[in-house]
Amino acid sequence: MRITVESGGAAALEQWRGYFQEFDPAIEVVGWDAARGDPAGIGYALVWAPGPGRLAALPDLKLIVSAGAGVDNILADPLLPASVPIARMITESTAAVMGDYVLTGALMLMRDARGMALDQAARRWRARENPPLVNEVRVGVMGLGQMGAHTAIRLAQTGFEVAGWSRTRADLPGVTCYAGPRERDAFLARSDILVCLLPATPATRGILNAETFSRLPRGASLINAGRGSHLVESDLLAALDSGQLKGALLDVFDIEPLPDASPLWSHPGILVTPHYGSTPSRRDRARKTVEIIHRWERGETLDLLYDRQRGY
Amino acid sequence: MRITVESGGAAALEQWRGYFQEFDPAIEVVGWDAARGDPAGIGYALVWAPGPGRLAALPDLKLIVSAGAGVDNILADPLLPASVPIARMITESTAAVMGDYVLTGALMLMRDARGMALDQAARRWRARENPPLVNEVRVGVMGLGQMGAHTAIRLAQTGFEVAGWSRTRADLPGVTCYAGPRERDAFLARSDILVCLLPATPATRGILNAETFSRLPRGASLINAGRGSHLVESDLLAALDSGQLKGALLDVFDIEPLPDASPLWSHPGILVTPHYGSTPSRRDRARKTVEIIHRWERGETLDLLYDRQRGY
Repeated sequence: MRITVESGGAAALEQWRGYFQEFDPAIEVVGWDAARGDPAGIGYALVWAPGPGRLAALPDLKLIVSAGAGVDNILADPLLPASVPIARMITESTAAVMGDYVLTGALMLMRDARGMALDQAARRWRARENPPLVNEVRVGVMGLGQMGAHTAIRLAQTGFEVAGWSRTRADLPGVTCYAGPRERDAFLARSDILVCLLPATPATRGILNAETFSRLPRGASLINAGRGSHLVESDLLAALDSGQLKGALLDVFDIEPLPDASPLWSHPGILVTPHYGSTPSRRDRARKTVEIIHRWERGETLDLLYDRQRGY
Repeated sequence: MRITVESGGAAALEQWRGYFQEFDPAIEVVGWDAARGDPAGIGYALVWAPGPGRLAALPDLKLIVSAGAGVDNILADPLLPASVPIARMITESTAAVMGDYVLTGALMLMRDARGMALDQAARRWRARENPPLVNEVRVGVMGLGQMGAHTAIRLAQTGFEVAGWSRTRADLPGVTCYAGPRERDAFLARSDILVCLLPATPATRGILNAETFSRLPRGASLINAGRGSHLVESDLLAALDSGQLKGALLDVFDIEPLPDASPLWSHPGILVTPHYGSTPSRRDRARKTVEIIHRWERGETLDLLYDRQRGY
């Protein structure tokens, strides 16, 4: 069996080879550049942002495995072979890692960790009021897939008052579940911290906008760990400057790495992290990819296949 | 009844008056400066750092109420009247606030929030490995008084592997309890994050030193929310620079506000917060002080009296 790996570029190739060797020595790892000239028999591709036409040039491709939970960078390829299924990368640890990331972020926003960092940089000792206790803060999680559901439950277990919002109604222990467009405003109105863990689809594009922010309680905070495309950056900046929002933690951006010139870097209300909210280690992803390949070869169904109808 | 209030200085006097008025209009609040010339009948003093001889100059003083949980700034007065008892300020919310503070700090240290802040300030997008999950991290809490006990339980409930260490053995749900000097090294050896919530006594002075740090696992982190006097600053800086410690969160300092010239402000491994880990609001403290006065007037025992034998 042959797999080509795009994720991490040429620099990561030997690492990937080592991990695949560890989990199944029968799998031959072909470099992403080498695959151009030697595509025969490549049945699998582990990719994050393959670029236009590259997957279509693999004649024996059976399954595309996304290197991340989202597949939007793969779908961005206009020549993507429509007949090849795509498996999403959600390992056993993905949701747990995201849960801890969002928990950390919510607590940091409550204590204005960004303002604290600016105070420390300026050697400024500023008396601060304590924030409300965790059990006095209402968090709202948009998107209740594996990551959203796990995160909502994790936050509720830590003591936050948690609600979730999804297309179809979920049922999660300790979480008040809202569903669909009709219940959106009620969900937003009770969310002191709004967490976006939606998939990137045409329907969710730009969902974090001025109108959405206006439905939150004044002084609410935002965590975007979904995709950069969910957020209208100019609306976020305006909402922070007007005081409608108090702070934001952003892990995902339209362009990554976030360009040097972005105003997000320096805004006193915004915490920037380098898209690592849920990335499993390469070893963990190699292990999962081998598991996916084995199941696929045995003809078993995969529960993480991208659904073109549903859009995620 | 008359009380004089030192905490917050002249600027806070009207605020204190309003709160005492709210909880017991029969209590007359005398300003700290005014008390010099008009000390008669002042039975109570709410103070944080009264300065030498000031309390001894109040002839009718019955009870000293500390404006914080610790009483070290009061004991620093060489002329402190030995016969007047001291009540410590621990309100219903003090321990809860501290629990949330330490929880936030532990999560921030795990994710190198200080390094993240420096990256953001430099507009540097640096790929980061995810830290271990909460349930893979061992926290050790030194000092299991009301605040330490609550904090240890809070961390355990959030999923951390928690141990506590105290003079006499405690019994806390979900927390492995170590006691006394003989079990200290075993406690330290299993603590990835060491949290100091000890009282400030001669026995605990400088307890956070090079020898203590050397007993921790390499790459451990420190949270000091006890007192500045617990920490040997130069030992912390050396341990960070050698890699024995990875990071530290400090909320308390020998001199507060932390002086501009302190190297703690700029160290890339140190997060500085302005001594607010457990400070209840003034209103909350006025309410508690009134409760303490009422109990004292009725001749009831107070469970928060400072014990000169024990040292806290």
